[in-house]
Amino acid sequence: MKTRPSYLRADVGAMDGYTPGEQPGPGEQVTKLNTNENPYPPSPRVLEALRAAAGGDLRLYPAPLADAARTRAAGAYGFSPDQVVAGNGSDDLLTLLVRAIVAPGQGIAYPVPTYSLYPVLARIQGARTVEVPFPEDFSLPAGLFGRPEPLVILCNPNAPTGTLVPGQEVRRLAESLSGVLAVDEAYVDFADENCLDLARELGNVVVLRTLSKSFSLAGLRVGFAFGPEDVISGLIKVKDSYNLDRLAIVGAEAALSDLEYMEANVARIRSTRARLVQGVQNVGLDPLPSQSNFVFVRCGGGRARKVIEGLKARGILVRFWDEPGVDDAVRITVGTDAEIDRLLAELGGILAAE
Amino acid sequence: MKTRPSYLRADVGAMDGYTPGEQPGPGEQVTKLNTNENPYPPSPRVLEALRAAAGGDLRLYPAPLADAARTRAAGAYGFSPDQVVAGNGSDDLLTLLVRAIVAPGQGIAYPVPTYSLYPVLARIQGARTVEVPFPEDFSLPAGLFGRPEPLVILCNPNAPTGTLVPGQEVRRLAESLSGVLAVDEAYVDFADENCLDLARELGNVVVLRTLSKSFSLAGLRVGFAFGPEDVISGLIKVKDSYNLDRLAIVGAEAALSDLEYMEANVARIRSTRARLVQGVQNVGLDPLPSQSNFVFVRCGGGRARKVIEGLKARGILVRFWDEPGVDDAVRITVGTDAEIDRLLAELGGILAAE
Repeated sequence: MKTRPSYLRADVGAMDGYTPGEQPGPGEQVTKLNTNENPYPPSPRVLEALRAAAGGDLRLYPAPLADAARTRAAGAYGFSPDQVVAGNGSDDLLTLLVRAIVAPGQGIAYPVPTYSLYPVLARIQGARTVEVPFPEDFSLPAGLFGRPEPLVILCNPNAPTGTLVPGQEVRRLAESLSGVLAVDEAYVDFADENCLDLARELGNVVVLRTLSKSFSLAGLRVGFAFGPEDVISGLIKVKDSYNLDRLAIVGAEAALSDLEYMEANVARIRSTRARLVQGVQNVGLDPLPSQSNFVFVRCGGGRARKVIEGLKARGILVRFWDEPGVDDAVRITVGTDAEIDRLLAELGGILAAE
Repeated sequence: MKTRPSYLRADVGAMDGYTPGEQPGPGEQVTKLNTNENPYPPSPRVLEALRAAAGGDLRLYPAPLADAARTRAAGAYGFSPDQVVAGNGSDDLLTLLVRAIVAPGQGIAYPVPTYSLYPVLARIQGARTVEVPFPEDFSLPAGLFGRPEPLVILCNPNAPTGTLVPGQEVRRLAESLSGVLAVDEAYVDFADENCLDLARELGNVVVLRTLSKSFSLAGLRVGFAFGPEDVISGLIKVKDSYNLDRLAIVGAEAALSDLEYMEANVARIRSTRARLVQGVQNVGLDPLPSQSNFVFVRCGGGRARKVIEGLKARGILVRFWDEPGVDDAVRITVGTDAEIDRLLAELGGILAAE
């Protein structure tokens, strides 16, 4: 029926967008362990600050650089404000990195499997992707060292595997590259170490953080990039003038002023994670060691589809990808102890019914 | 001192970013008539809805398509939801239009002077700009008709002039183009007519709206694009997965459910606008006819710089551009009657002191 040509760029017309994890409709009663949200609410100080900020000042534009949040983030993590830019979630910052650093036709390299947004961003930019498979143990692939692309991305801890590459290895990688290494640390608060020192010391490392996971603020859309001033200044040129709204700025400042609250939740989640890992092993599944708030569970024997469908029928959502290399595994977000106990009980039933 | 090459794309390294209007620091007492903010607070229903939404659910991701806000916008303006996409302000939507429609090396055409973000977005995309000067009366330039570029942008009412091109003329323009016409209607609630019917009827017109001006929500960052489904679907592919946060979605839905409140403020601002236009004429300045919430005032005789500096010294901010064609004019946002009376009194003093 469509006879006129598309108005879209050919690249964009032909591509598939990124598919976010399933979001149940309002009122649907499900146990949601599919998008790595934190099972605990945000700090009460954040909610108080947000309510106080919901006033007449919303008629005014926000600070273009989200000053209050940026300064607080810089102070909390040992950077100067010029080494920090706030984003509308770390997805915004990933977009900015690609747009500021990678010209159309150039490449973006990253190990796979990883966050499936990276190739989508490359495609939108008209950039090539260089996908280097992780070895079995999810250490850094040798083929990533010395890559000539202007941007290399390392999700660390990695999604969807939850595995962590040690900082010393990341440093070796950064030193081998001629371009920028972006370390996407969305999950790093759940891990034993991080790479912020590399963003401070090396000239080519940018570290991305988000308030979505450890700070329980996926709904507020706030992330930060930390790195060398010249790269950060490029991201600032490319970003929307007012990429964070007034409430997000206020909420972020409050969240970063209450690190103890976040850390207490992280401790609980790490403890529940150990329970989840043990529990899936007990029912005969094969989890990867996790340094994040989710566990990548290899099912074996093509059972992954049965697992997700069985869980879904019982009102439990977990994540699954119908793609080579990851299609016999499920990714389970670490919920509360009660949620994980229920998941494990159902899982036992589903697998016993084989 | 800097010996290593830049990590940024050459285009981005060389460009200047967009310069937003000056934002006074917290606690600075100024009369802010420089960034076209609404002098009246947002609807009390919006503030109530925001406070109610500042709860534990912020731990969860927002709806990727901002469903509640999108559906409400579609209903309020006579579209189906598939013909609407919500953006993080209309700047986000302009970025999406450029990225979805214009390949690097292609062009974006628009009449000038206009919103100075357009060439910045073109530069970031590696696109050419075709700038066609408005004639003296700010009607559509003949040279814009029939342009072959994939994207033509018309800010209508135009910034910074406040002038409006009638819908019938915009229709003629759209029908003459082979690409998409984006009509940036950020200010249209202050005008006598709009182009939503073109977005409904023609296959190549996208209309952009924002809650920043007439709805008094510049601090919340919400805009909408209305247009043909196939173009809207392209914008959706390119946008960040969760480009609106949960609070913005809730606030937008509430704002669009209280159009009467917005309309009452618009009526007040239009009345104050008439007072401002009359007042600047009385002191010998030359305002353009305005269909927006600001007035572009030609000062003549190189007096614009004196006007802005004099006003600034008296604690009143207005907007000025040090660029050919607009450098002997100031743009004054329509504030409250009291703010405008004060401005007019000070203006009289500044000009009398010549």
